[in-house]
Amino acid sequence: MNVTAPATLAADEVAFVSGRTRLYGIVGHPIEQVRSPEMVTAELHGRGADAILLPIHVLPEDFDTVLPNLLKVANLDGLIFTIPFKAAALALCDELGPQASVVGAINALTRREGGGWKGEIFDGLGCVEGFRRRGIPFAGRRVMLIGTGGAGSAIGVAVAFQKPQSIRVFDMDEGRSRDLAERIAKVDPAIRVEIGAPTVDDIDILLNASPVGMLGDPRRPIAAETLPASLTVFDAIVKPETTPLLALAESCGCTVVRGREMMRGQIASIVDYFGHARA
Amino acid sequence: MNVTAPATLAADEVAFVSGRTRLYGIVGHPIEQVRSPEMVTAELHGRGADAILLPIHVLPEDFDTVLPNLLKVANLDGLIFTIPFKAAALALCDELGPQASVVGAINALTRREGGGWKGEIFDGLGCVEGFRRRGIPFAGRRVMLIGTGGAGSAIGVAVAFQKPQSIRVFDMDEGRSRDLAERIAKVDPAIRVEIGAPTVDDIDILLNASPVGMLGDPRRPIAAETLPASLTVFDAIVKPETTPLLALAESCGCTVVRGREMMRGQIASIVDYFGHARA
Repeated sequence: MNVTAPATLAADEVAFVSGRTRLYGIVGHPIEQVRSPEMVTAELHGRGADAILLPIHVLPEDFDTVLPNLLKVANLDGLIFTIPFKAAALALCDELGPQASVVGAINALTRREGGGWKGEIFDGLGCVEGFRRRGIPFAGRRVMLIGTGGAGSAIGVAVAFQKPQSIRVFDMDEGRSRDLAERIAKVDPAIRVEIGAPTVDDIDILLNASPVGMLGDPRRPIAAETLPASLTVFDAIVKPETTPLLALAESCGCTVVRGREMMRGQIASIVDYFGHARA
Repeated sequence: MNVTAPATLAADEVAFVSGRTRLYGIVGHPIEQVRSPEMVTAELHGRGADAILLPIHVLPEDFDTVLPNLLKVANLDGLIFTIPFKAAALALCDELGPQASVVGAINALTRREGGGWKGEIFDGLGCVEGFRRRGIPFAGRRVMLIGTGGAGSAIGVAVAFQKPQSIRVFDMDEGRSRDLAERIAKVDPAIRVEIGAPTVDDIDILLNASPVGMLGDPRRPIAAETLPASLTVFDAIVKPETTPLLALAESCGCTVVRGREMMRGQIASIVDYFGHARA
């Protein structure tokens, strides 16, 4: 089992893993539902990396002892964290990115040059990257954000770094909204921040980061029956691809940005962070 | 990053890993030269398992703290150990297979029904499986074994379980030979065990487990210039496929069993042990 690799593969071998393959993982509980293994691995391969991203199922009670030991695996170069570990993973970082410092959580960890590990959160950066790829700027725009849970607050913070004119936030939990408003003000005190009910009046970009409309839920997160065609409407929900909100937006002639674009933007940004240049 | 898997793959996804993939690993130092990832993964896939075997590079000074934590990863179902960890891995076992008990080392570890981990060593069982696949029995045969290091002693023990008539062992290090002779006697006191120079007189099966003849080394591990055609000759060396010993054996009309057959036998036996039935 210890033979120098041949130049060509035999029939009884697979091509996608060898002793030289570098490892990445997504750590979560539960783990079976995650999509990063197939998507991030495809992105790594697309950039020519001999690397793979694996599902790593860690029980919450084991996290604090298992993770520091997992980081000692010498051919492991980075991790993604999902529910429920995004806040707990902060403790693994020797250095935090600007988003993570404000949000207080990370979802990606990678080796630092010179040793140690650095962490950043890409939930919000993925949304910004999705908009960037479509050529839609946030700078100077008036933004309405619905939902200020984990993904929503990360989106709010990432958008705040883009110099919008204003951000209005809404969540059923008003405490969470106040908390996010404070974080936004910390990023950029020039942004006008409001807390209040969902509206599209005097709004350029509507962002839904609430679960309303997910997986067969027929509701929309905003009461309006029509939307101005000048509005850009984003929904963080990935399934269904067209939520009731996006269906209305399309019927009103709005520009629509989908959850899958955020997901692709996030994957590209994380693989950048892992140190693999875009092809 | 937390979406229910779709029935079909998108273009930006790979097919060989997902959130449901079960993990196996080979743990060693160094790791880049190992061949188990591509070969064991192919065997797992051939049996219909959604599973992958990864290279896991652990530094010797980290082994005792990292490994017990690695075993807490809930979707990790088994490990293979290579140099220098085959003896250290014993400490991870709640139960030892019959070969491992005699050899004092393991190279495979898998979950036990009801919890905990069981270990066994397959270096020798792979050789026996290779012979079994070719229909060549050890029972009642007279065996000469050259080389009683890690692989050689595992082969000696595995052969001893097959009820041969006699085993003659040779190693440059006579202490190792004596040690193996004692282990063979412990497995089956009915076997006639001798220690002495390589010979083919009154021998049915010649096994080379020494490094003589490896990677361009032109030597043979036995002085004979011809071999009886009735002899079966095995060489544990994988590269080259035909060692100087096997070249002589072929020219003399002997039956030849190659190192790669042992490797395939070992992989099949380990994947059995991992709990995946043969297709």
